[in-house]
Amino acid sequence: MGVSKFMAPEIIFGFNSLEQIGESVLRLGAKKVFIVSDPGVVSAGWVEEAIHYLRQCKLDYCLWTNVTSNPKDYEVAAGVAEYMECGCNAVVGIGGGSAIDAAKSVALLGSNGGSIRQYEGVDLVHRPLPPMVMVPTTAGSGSEVSQFSIVVDTERKVKMTIVSKSLIPDIAIVDPRTLMTKDRKLTAHTGMDALTHAIESYISLASTPLTEGYSLQAIRLISEFLRPSVASQHNREAKEAMAMASLQAGIAFSNAILGAVHAMSHQLGGLLDLPHGEVNAILLPHVMEFNLISTPEKYKKIACAFGENVNSTSPADAAKLAIKAVKSLADDLGIPHSLPIRNLEEDTISLLSQNAVQDACMITNPRDLSAEDVKMLFQKVLGSGRQ
Amino acid sequence: MGVSKFMAPEIIFGFNSLEQIGESVLRLGAKKVFIVSDPGVVSAGWVEEAIHYLRQCKLDYCLWTNVTSNPKDYEVAAGVAEYMECGCNAVVGIGGGSAIDAAKSVALLGSNGGSIRQYEGVDLVHRPLPPMVMVPTTAGSGSEVSQFSIVVDTERKVKMTIVSKSLIPDIAIVDPRTLMTKDRKLTAHTGMDALTHAIESYISLASTPLTEGYSLQAIRLISEFLRPSVASQHNREAKEAMAMASLQAGIAFSNAILGAVHAMSHQLGGLLDLPHGEVNAILLPHVMEFNLISTPEKYKKIACAFGENVNSTSPADAAKLAIKAVKSLADDLGIPHSLPIRNLEEDTISLLSQNAVQDACMITNPRDLSAEDVKMLFQKVLGSGRQ
Repeated sequence: MGVSKFMAPEIIFGFNSLEQIGESVLRLGAKKVFIVSDPGVVSAGWVEEAIHYLRQCKLDYCLWTNVTSNPKDYEVAAGVAEYMECGCNAVVGIGGGSAIDAAKSVALLGSNGGSIRQYEGVDLVHRPLPPMVMVPTTAGSGSEVSQFSIVVDTERKVKMTIVSKSLIPDIAIVDPRTLMTKDRKLTAHTGMDALTHAIESYISLASTPLTEGYSLQAIRLISEFLRPSVASQHNREAKEAMAMASLQAGIAFSNAILGAVHAMSHQLGGLLDLPHGEVNAILLPHVMEFNLISTPEKYKKIACAFGENVNSTSPADAAKLAIKAVKSLADDLGIPHSLPIRNLEEDTISLLSQNAVQDACMITNPRDLSAEDVKMLFQKVLGSGRQ
Repeated sequence: MGVSKFMAPEIIFGFNSLEQIGESVLRLGAKKVFIVSDPGVVSAGWVEEAIHYLRQCKLDYCLWTNVTSNPKDYEVAAGVAEYMECGCNAVVGIGGGSAIDAAKSVALLGSNGGSIRQYEGVDLVHRPLPPMVMVPTTAGSGSEVSQFSIVVDTERKVKMTIVSKSLIPDIAIVDPRTLMTKDRKLTAHTGMDALTHAIESYISLASTPLTEGYSLQAIRLISEFLRPSVASQHNREAKEAMAMASLQAGIAFSNAILGAVHAMSHQLGGLLDLPHGEVNAILLPHVMEFNLISTPEKYKKIACAFGENVNSTSPADAAKLAIKAVKSLADDLGIPHSLPIRNLEEDTISLLSQNAVQDACMITNPRDLSAEDVKMLFQKVLGSGRQ
């Protein structure tokens, strides 16, 4: 093993941990807080509650909610303009991956200036960011602990992957209560996103003993608690378990990076503005089949984490049980077998495939993929679906 | 589960990671570095190598090596005076737990002022510390990632436990090469210290899903690699595994805290200046026997992590296998069954027991201990040894 690095923010986890947002922001030296959220989270009441705690700590704030799913470059630009105009010196993100990714990119431009496109790639951030506290309200993105921010370049219609240690928030406040206002579809999609993070980080070429345990534990929790979490908005045990799973998967992938599922879904998400979690869920079993030969031993451990009995099974069959378990979970959640897209031009698929090969997440995929390989996988999920 | 917190420094791990010390200190804004180490580590050449990398980054430094095992309050006071005199603005610790604990306490007083005694207890540090980069050269203390600093109050002859998030270093650089210059006794003692951290943090009342995996993984690694690491200074695989085990146990106990072994060993260490790791190793099986009824399920998992076959064993017997495995490891390493102390007055034992009950580490022990219970345990390790 060569030299590896590991980094995570301070984490405050548990029911009602949102109460600690005021003092958390305060001790980072904030005076005026820029709150990034989206209208759905505002309606659910979480932003109002957070503002109550900020006010208790005599903190001034400015609320900005013009974020859509798959946040866009122009949204981030508008957010930064507002951040500067308001004279804020700290950023709080409350929401799913989109709101938190947007919040992180606003913080990035707030101290580093320029356009978000300049920072696409790895380690291109040079000045420290303002203090950031993130409150995830879905159990999926892991953005509250990760060094990633994903923003759509609307001109090129691609998702830009921005990777920098500076993007790791100072504090992540994970309150499972916030999951209780999400509908079953969002719960399912975000949960499958967390599963994709756990599996891709586990088989990643950059995984380490500091990340592998978190990846496997996240798989265990998702295998046991995603179905009940989708089944009921009120199951506290399931919400807490899924919040922990998403957090552990987030710490794992932030440090071990991801793989071909994300490299591919970034292209589809950028072009077609599709829900990230659902696209990942549809791609995951196909990519797992392709990657199988790279690390069957790890697949066997994934199968174990799913609770599959692998004791009297050949190593090859044990590895395949991991894929079967993922498919069975996706089926139980009503995830379709193929993407709801028809008539995508062959040239477009070729271009998406070439772009996917260049995505930062592809570097750590455990099996090399040519653009042809990616195209074949795209055709599978665009065609008649799961084979 | 209530609200839990988790925090770890940035970690750079692997053979030759020491090369990164210059740029690590530099990006924290350091100009002049106060290096805390001890003469043994200097002789081994690690300080010279670190200085080489600091110089490459044009960093000025001041070297201070007046630290003994179980660092003393007056040593820390002398260190701070030197730190101020030299006009340093960052602290680097290179060494075992003693050097790193001393470095952290120097940094504490460097920015917070006063005497180290004022900070004994939990969360009494109010001003930010100067940037800290720590390089452990033993696989044991975990101080490079922990929120603890242990310093002897030489007047009261007790070890003071200072706990504060501010004591978590900014960056931990863990280079397994540094373990290759340690003798077998130090390797054994520090390895048993790491095992004690892993076991106490795992059964701690404050353990969480973010710490439990690290505790168990550390036990697995120690169970497999501590013997070979003690057997040979040149076994690279064993050194790397033990460095990782100590790191994981360190992250776990920094967040989950410890238990009765540490509460008791702090008293003996403070009074008699005994080697911390050896005292822990001798106490550990006795305290495990006492704690057994509090959490037999976790003991069973510890037995599994030791590779014990618990499938066809009753739950009660499976739990006992954990204690048997610890004893067997200690025996193989030549750890004595009792402390090399005779004729300790009954009154002294009573006083040590009362102090142990007040130690910060006792709060998270999974079984309540009265001063009488502690006294009974002390008498066991002071008497004819293991029963």
